[in-house]
Amino acid sequence: MPNYQDIIEAIASELNNVKEKGTVASYIPELSKIDPNKFGIHLVDSQMNHYSAGDADELFSIQSISKVLSLSKCFALVGDSIWERVDVEPSGDPFNHLSLLEFENGIPRNPLINAGAIVVADILVSNLENPKDEFLYFIRQITNDDSITYNEKVAESEKNTGFKNIAAANLLKSYGNLENDVDEVLDFYFHQCSIEMSCKQLANAFYMFMNHGKCQRGKTHLNINQVKRINALMLTCGFYDEAGEFAFEVGLPGKSGVGGGIAAVFPDKFSVVTWSPGLNQKGNSKLGMQALEKLTTKTSQSIF
Amino acid sequence: MPNYQDIIEAIASELNNVKEKGTVASYIPELSKIDPNKFGIHLVDSQMNHYSAGDADELFSIQSISKVLSLSKCFALVGDSIWERVDVEPSGDPFNHLSLLEFENGIPRNPLINAGAIVVADILVSNLENPKDEFLYFIRQITNDDSITYNEKVAESEKNTGFKNIAAANLLKSYGNLENDVDEVLDFYFHQCSIEMSCKQLANAFYMFMNHGKCQRGKTHLNINQVKRINALMLTCGFYDEAGEFAFEVGLPGKSGVGGGIAAVFPDKFSVVTWSPGLNQKGNSKLGMQALEKLTTKTSQSIF
Amino acid sequence: MPNYQDIIEAIASELNNVKEKGTVASYIPELSKIDPNKFGIHLVDSQMNHYSAGDADELFSIQSISKVLSLSKCFALVGDSIWERVDVEPSGDPFNHLSLLEFENGIPRNPLINAGAIVVADILVSNLENPKDEFLYFIRQITNDDSITYNEKVAESEKNTGFKNIAAANLLKSYGNLENDVDEVLDFYFHQCSIEMSCKQLANAFYMFMNHGKCQRGKTHLNINQVKRINALMLTCGFYDEAGEFAFEVGLPGKSGVGGGIAAVFPDKFSVVTWSPGLNQKGNSKLGMQALEKLTTKTSQSIF
Amino acid sequence: MPNYQDIIEAIASELNNVKEKGTVASYIPELSKIDPNKFGIHLVDSQMNHYSAGDADELFSIQSISKVLSLSKCFALVGDSIWERVDVEPSGDPFNHLSLLEFENGIPRNPLINAGAIVVADILVSNLENPKDEFLYFIRQITNDDSITYNEKVAESEKNTGFKNIAAANLLKSYGNLENDVDEVLDFYFHQCSIEMSCKQLANAFYMFMNHGKCQRGKTHLNINQVKRINALMLTCGFYDEAGEFAFEVGLPGKSGVGGGIAAVFPDKFSVVTWSPGLNQKGNSKLGMQALEKLTTKTSQSIF
Repeated sequence: MPNYQDIIEAIASELNNVKEKGTVASYIPELSKIDPNKFGIHLVDSQMNHYSAGDADELFSIQSISKVLSLSKCFALVGDSIWERVDVEPSGDPFNHLSLLEFENGIPRNPLINAGAIVVADILVSNLENPKDEFLYFIRQITNDDSITYNEKVAESEKNTGFKNIAAANLLKSYGNLENDVDEVLDFYFHQCSIEMSCKQLANAFYMFMNHGKCQRGKTHLNINQVKRINALMLTCGFYDEAGEFAFEVGLPGKSGVGGGIAAVFPDKFSVVTWSPGLNQKGNSKLGMQALEKLTTKTSQSIF
Repeated sequence: MPNYQDIIEAIASELNNVKEKGTVASYIPELSKIDPNKFGIHLVDSQMNHYSAGDADELFSIQSISKVLSLSKCFALVGDSIWERVDVEPSGDPFNHLSLLEFENGIPRNPLINAGAIVVADILVSNLENPKDEFLYFIRQITNDDSITYNEKVAESEKNTGFKNIAAANLLKSYGNLENDVDEVLDFYFHQCSIEMSCKQLANAFYMFMNHGKCQRGKTHLNINQVKRINALMLTCGFYDEAGEFAFEVGLPGKSGVGGGIAAVFPDKFSVVTWSPGLNQKGNSKLGMQALEKLTTKTSQSIF
Repeated sequence: MPNYQDIIEAIASELNNVKEKGTVASYIPELSKIDPNKFGIHLVDSQMNHYSAGDADELFSIQSISKVLSLSKCFALVGDSIWERVDVEPSGDPFNHLSLLEFENGIPRNPLINAGAIVVADILVSNLENPKDEFLYFIRQITNDDSITYNEKVAESEKNTGFKNIAAANLLKSYGNLENDVDEVLDFYFHQCSIEMSCKQLANAFYMFMNHGKCQRGKTHLNINQVKRINALMLTCGFYDEAGEFAFEVGLPGKSGVGGGIAAVFPDKFSVVTWSPGLNQKGNSKLGMQALEKLTTKTSQSIF
Repeated sequence: MPNYQDIIEAIASELNNVKEKGTVASYIPELSKIDPNKFGIHLVDSQMNHYSAGDADELFSIQSISKVLSLSKCFALVGDSIWERVDVEPSGDPFNHLSLLEFENGIPRNPLINAGAIVVADILVSNLENPKDEFLYFIRQITNDDSITYNEKVAESEKNTGFKNIAAANLLKSYGNLENDVDEVLDFYFHQCSIEMSCKQLANAFYMFMNHGKCQRGKTHLNINQVKRINALMLTCGFYDEAGEFAFEVGLPGKSGVGGGIAAVFPDKFSVVTWSPGLNQKGNSKLGMQALEKLTTKTSQSIF
């Protein structure tokens, strides 16, 4: 087994010297205030050993990384019927393009682009009594940490400026692929994205994706087939228009968020999360991508 | 280690009873004459043990599976400079759509869609003295079999009916992304697609992709990074508009061809090839997809 | 001069026998209740002589025909600066497609598709103190009829079901091409579409487009150049994806609405309005198209 | 009646001072050698009076203007059956975009974009015994001038560099919308575009479009309905992605070519041709557009 602690410390130290750290997301006002120099990395191996470097305990907005968690909750609740309302193919488009929706009659290409995640949110709203409470409970459970919560300011901020998401939800509604009220679904969706977690907490949450669906508390949330599917989706669709590049450079299933986080897993081996707020042109964390590329190179571990 | 022989025999037997075998490709007249009841499967493990069932020794037209082999030859020749002329992202489009070319100024989305493979063919034509001879030599070498050859009738057949490919090549030329004469590049491309191989031969050829770039003769054709990249491309782009579904159902890097073949690899474990001429609506072998899904389920082996 | 009364009576009588009257719009619940057998036609010539047949005095929902009137009010108010926010080219797309917006950075193709009309509504909201009152005043003035008013039920109905328009407005907002609150702009837009007028009233309102911008009360609302431009826009963009067909069959500048109305003008000769609630597949009144084609054939009058 | 001679001389003189004359087309090598300072204008009124200014007798390559003439020949030969293979709607796309072809199953949007004109060429090749000879004969007849001929160098030049047109023809073939050999159709198409005419000759050729289908020799080539349809097509589709702008600025049916020519007609009044080789960004003659805008303004004549 590689010496993970040495490796991630070396990575943190190498990246410390990189000057071009990308651009902090500005379209959500609340996110634009983050210090671009923050950098954290946390790895949990299959034995639940923890390895940390940098700002790994600091909270950040998980944003789109939440899509994997809402998809998991949804998949666990309704099973394969989810695939009647959202497809599983890479989109070949930026994360916020609505064009394909129109050519495909309101069926989003996959659950990890915004339109797909909004459909997933709609299914959760239909199937949970108190969607926000129950989703948070699920997150706390798989993370084994009851301190995790929504950031109401960030949720509010997106409600007031998330025009593309409002457009996407209304377009889905016009195609009959949204059961609930647009506002209700978006309220849930904006809250889900606003959750704040640290690298460590997120790495704990993603532990189940490398552990056959069983979380650190020992509870099985997804069966083996479901986990395989979610991992496949992360690999093919987890990085917007840069999914191919990530599979190519890193070779692990993963998911990024505009808050600067990236969560990735190596089945049976580890779950790892990086955080660096500066984004590249495709909207993925610039240093996070580099950190994970270094990790798979230094450990010679990749699914390919 | 799973008992591969028992497993693939069970698969062949189960699929023998399936009535809906898909539709044999008719757009290339020469291919439409194949018996739809043919079925073969061949697996080579990392120790070079061979496991076979059905028509695994019968020759078929490898068609698009050849794109992985031409990409490998090209990557070995020119290294990363290839990525200046072709991207690495899934296309989210059927295999023969030209639309994206226009929005992306003549840079194909990836080397496994037709337009991308034509660019790869152009690079080979520029860099090889006798492209067709040298490419065939490469195939024979990695397969360890000097009997492999082009089917001139199939190549001719595509030359006379491959209008979409001719369109794609001319569009690439109009964007300045084709160095050589359109006819010369297409002559090479149609020949590369016309190669005939058996399941066994193809499984041998793909052995190097699960063996860090080293073929069965012990020669290293690609370095580890290059193999990782090719495997990542197969996983994200190997099945046209059904790449996500394949990653999702099978979970292995692979490539299909309209001749009904599918080649897939499990890094460090095995290389496997199926052949069944009937295609599903997306242009991938219907029974081949099912056979590989059964294989990963029965062996509980998947990269996810 | 042709005998207009005889001609339109002949047209009304011929169309009375047509059995395939198209389908009444159902996406706005309030509109779906209309009797599909209604048919009216009204023509005003340059001398203000009136010719009528069928249900020409019955009120119907003018819907998209209002876009020409809001554009006129807007053009009169802000002049050519309007063209910085909306283009003047045909869209080559169905009326409600958002795709082009994304490829053109939020600049709608023309002011007669929904997205363009929403931008025009936004300009009016910015430039009028009481947008709804002042717009209604303008309509009453050019029509010379103070009884015209909004149908609050229809406006409300669209507010609750006009998801594509809400999507379009939010997409425009995301591109910075909407100054005001999305809800405020849509409230104005849904009201403008809900106006009810008879064939006769609409023919009076469109009189100014064949009379160099001067309405029947003798007031000049648009200068000659502005009228020329609006007529050119109606000819090239007035019928969604069927603009070419209308120019081709009818050869007059005109505008249709999903309420079943069509208004058209022959510069210096006449203004004419038809109403028949059944729509063809492109969303234009089926019998209305036929009536106008008969009119230009029978009068041998067409701008071509 | 306006004093046409004074008006066009004034226009020629005003445009003489314009410094930004646009860019001469360079994609066809033969065309790039033209002197950008050339300017000609020629008008024929309904009485066959001629008015001329500048280089109105100098030959230039008519290029896409030929599409209106081939469409006329084709329409006269096969009647409305032409519309089964090509539509009549504006494209909303640059002249050489192939994307729409794919979304519309090989039916070009209209006969004045390249793909549509290639279908028209195919119909002519199918219906004429000696297509090139008979088409030239037709041109000479409607122009009343037997000196008109193809420029073989230009035709050859396009054959060697017209990759987008070759792509379009092959795409049409792949959709079954090309009956003849791709090379044969393109040979005809490249020849038709290579015809050289002066402003005067072209104005004579277009005389029939303002004269109900009857040419100056008194022969009727198209019936009134057919002329109306061709004029409607010119107005809605004659200027690629700038058709709306032309209808808007000039208000006449017309057609431009990359050789710098523009032909336009005012039904019953006049036929006019301008020539200035510099193009604007949309591929239409920069000064030609201005000249015609001035003409309709100065004569106060527009169909709107």
